[in-house]
Amino acid sequence: MSSYNNTARFSEARRVAIFGGTHGNEMSGVTLVNLWTKNGAEIQRKAVEAVPFITNPKAVEKCTRYVDTDLNRAFTPENLSTRLTPSDECGNNLPYEVLRAQEINRIFGPKGSPEAYDVIFDLHNTTSNMGCTLILESSKDYFNLQMMNYIKLVENLFYLQMNHLIVFFYAGLEVGPQPQGVLRSNIFEAMRVILKHALDFIELFNEGVEFPPCTVEVFRVLERIDYPRDANGNIIAMVHPNLQDCDWEPLNPGDPMFQTFDGKTIHYQGSGTVYPTFINEAAYYEKQQAFITTRRETLVARRLCRGSSPANF
Amino acid sequence: MSSYNNTARFSEARRVAIFGGTHGNEMSGVTLVNLWTKNGAEIQRKAVEAVPFITNPKAVEKCTRYVDTDLNRAFTPENLSTRLTPSDECGNNLPYEVLRAQEINRIFGPKGSPEAYDVIFDLHNTTSNMGCTLILESSKDYFNLQMMNYIKLVENLFYLQMNHLIVFFYAGLEVGPQPQGVLRSNIFEAMRVILKHALDFIELFNEGVEFPPCTVEVFRVLERIDYPRDANGNIIAMVHPNLQDCDWEPLNPGDPMFQTFDGKTIHYQGSGTVYPTFINEAAYYEKQQAFITTRRETLVARRLCRGSSPANF
Repeated sequence: MSSYNNTARFSEARRVAIFGGTHGNEMSGVTLVNLWTKNGAEIQRKAVEAVPFITNPKAVEKCTRYVDTDLNRAFTPENLSTRLTPSDECGNNLPYEVLRAQEINRIFGPKGSPEAYDVIFDLHNTTSNMGCTLILESSKDYFNLQMMNYIKLVENLFYLQMNHLIVFFYAGLEVGPQPQGVLRSNIFEAMRVILKHALDFIELFNEGVEFPPCTVEVFRVLERIDYPRDANGNIIAMVHPNLQDCDWEPLNPGDPMFQTFDGKTIHYQGSGTVYPTFINEAAYYEKQQAFITTRRETLVARRLCRGSSPANF
Repeated sequence: MSSYNNTARFSEARRVAIFGGTHGNEMSGVTLVNLWTKNGAEIQRKAVEAVPFITNPKAVEKCTRYVDTDLNRAFTPENLSTRLTPSDECGNNLPYEVLRAQEINRIFGPKGSPEAYDVIFDLHNTTSNMGCTLILESSKDYFNLQMMNYIKLVENLFYLQMNHLIVFFYAGLEVGPQPQGVLRSNIFEAMRVILKHALDFIELFNEGVEFPPCTVEVFRVLERIDYPRDANGNIIAMVHPNLQDCDWEPLNPGDPMFQTFDGKTIHYQGSGTVYPTFINEAAYYEKQQAFITTRRETLVARRLCRGSSPANF
């Protein structure tokens, strides 16, 4: 990306990967990718080469989040720089997902190189009531900010809460609420329609359409909040009914946050209003995380047009 | 149980077991049983000895439904009659849950014997929108029918849809919707309050209170309906949005039932109205079951009073 006069220029984004099954029990992405692998007509565009790909086939087969370790946390520089062998220097077997991250990086990367794919969509579900959320790594990712603005403009289905952009540590599309191992038609269709518009946007961009500057409401991650625990580390409270399912709604100092098993209310003690999300996500119990707090921000996305710079987002 | 003059007589039901974690990722029962194991004041009654018990501790530790095989289907006469050894006659290791079923039968049974516990509550969650459901083995289980009638009379919280009794192949309490691995406060409190009233009912019964004849609306299981599949056995459709979350509501011939991934609607072709339940339950994908059809019935529960017969329900 190069920029001058408040314009962001990218070379065309021809090669697009669509990942499903990074977590094997998140069924919308698994089902869409399997569907598009059999028949890709729906994701074909004249100027875009879209490749659907199941990233964690063993976890998909077992309908579990992962086999050895969370694939979504396995794309670290250390893991990716390890030689491509099934065991480490001490002869220990590498976790399946570390080997898988290396393989994915070999096929679609290497991360940060000119050969890497231009855009990667990583499809996820959450048990939290988050609607549709695009998760980006940087507040200067003008390409994806413009894409989100585009999707908001063309799509006004009630469940497409695409104002819920979150600046986070990996890039993905998160749609919920949906239990693990379950495919719900409303969540499936929401993910499908977002991908349709995202590919349309990339097609327009590749054809030379320019996108004027815009502002986008986003939520920036502040803090991870754990469940209250006893001295032995056992959870002693649940998400309070007033907070449950209220992702993206304001949580003010003094508001109920948890309810202990013996009926006491624990209130939020922060100094100002925050916007919780990933509230009561099943997979985050093991990460000691009851929810994440965010703050609202307005980002300005620069004018976007095709240029001659490398398109590594 | 003995009966004459339309009266059902049971000897007192002093020993009550409360099972949680039969499926290790159904968190309401796991949490309640762990809580009551630490402090049983809430489940103590003068004339009742209530024992909370985690039935599948390995599955609870891993937060998975089961380790080797479904414990809830392991209490078969064949499994329970096998000698208590960790391997079968061919030297193969027995599945963990088969050994566990034998152990549970030894502690709380043997099933059908005079030493067996009088009442067993098996606490379950479902991802389906089923409310609170008591699952019984027999339409002549007058004790549990009277218990359900009692709970309906004393409790009118909106989520206690205790009119949803289902005659089925095992006895349990099923509360949902709740994703696997998640503890929701509303579902937790619903299960807790049902257990409170159930123990109150048993206490009253043991104290000699008699319960007059009553009628109870129940749902009797008819048929298990699988997802539509292609020639290779792959699922090609989802539960239709008109049916999703509509457990216990009438499904009439011609009503939408499934939606294929290419957008076609599949209609219910039965000959009359049925009442679907366990709609889109996560754990039933592997059992090739999208939902279960039931029919409504009105059962008459006989007058209940304490007698001298053995109390093996």
